[in-house]
Amino acid sequence: MTVSHDCPLCREDGGLLIALHHKFRIIRATGPDEVDFPGFYRVIWNAHRAEFSDLDAAERELLMAVVARVEVVLRECLRPDKVNLAALGNMVPHLHWHLIARYDWDSRWPAPVWAAPRREADAARLAALHDQSAACDAAIAGLAF
Amino acid sequence: MTVSHDCPLCREDGGLLIALHHKFRIIRATGPDEVDFPGFYRVIWNAHRAEFSDLDAAERELLMAVVARVEVVLRECLRPDKVNLAALGNMVPHLHWHLIARYDWDSRWPAPVWAAPRREADAARLAALHDQSAACDAAIAGLAF
Repeated sequence: MTVSHDCPLCREDGGLLIALHHKFRIIRATGPDEVDFPGFYRVIWNAHRAEFSDLDAAERELLMAVVARVEVVLRECLRPDKVNLAALGNMVPHLHWHLIARYDWDSRWPAPVWAAPRREADAARLAALHDQSAACDAAIAGLAF
Repeated sequence: MTVSHDCPLCREDGGLLIALHHKFRIIRATGPDEVDFPGFYRVIWNAHRAEFSDLDAAERELLMAVVARVEVVLRECLRPDKVNLAALGNMVPHLHWHLIARYDWDSRWPAPVWAAPRREADAARLAALHDQSAACDAAIAGLAF
């Protein structure tokens, strides 16, 4: 497998590991930047590739089928107002898809999570969502890939 | 086709129309928010669907194959440092993929385009990139779908 030794996503899982396949892994993002977004997961391609179009067609189809299946779990477990999907990689050019459950009460809504905060997130709803994380993790871990 | 009459992407193309397929269209984003990003295109699903997982598997594969092919054109025509892909839809919940050519000299790099500006974009490079837009449009329009 292609590895880049100075790439954090080649060295580490990149979050709380939820599921591991030989081609990809699914993590929950648990860093300080994501504390306002308990429903923030990433599907990370294990091999070091920068761009989506660096994958071949079969790899892209596999990866996006996984993204869609994880999105369905987020919708069922977390009932978001919207799911946000993104593959950016400007800082870590190792292909990873962000999947983020968004709510009209969250700190950035309706802007992307990378915009400046617009408000304090609703504390009670945020706490309730954090309480759902373990069940959502288990549902994702239970997917058969 | 499913249409929502209060949805701007059901009423209008949503940008400069580059290619039109019966299932999707490709536009170049030419609004005031995108003036710093000449290589900003969108692949828009024509029918009104909110989430990626609202499409069936064949539709998702078609859509992402188009996204990948447009990404390849952006890479060849515009030589970005990175391509950013995103399906957000918090404000307009009609499925559309943003494809954005990013550069280490652009106004938000390495943050997402939705973050606050970090600098003035390099004016000469920005002008040169604007000069490439018509050729990039033509290359996208020339793709056979």
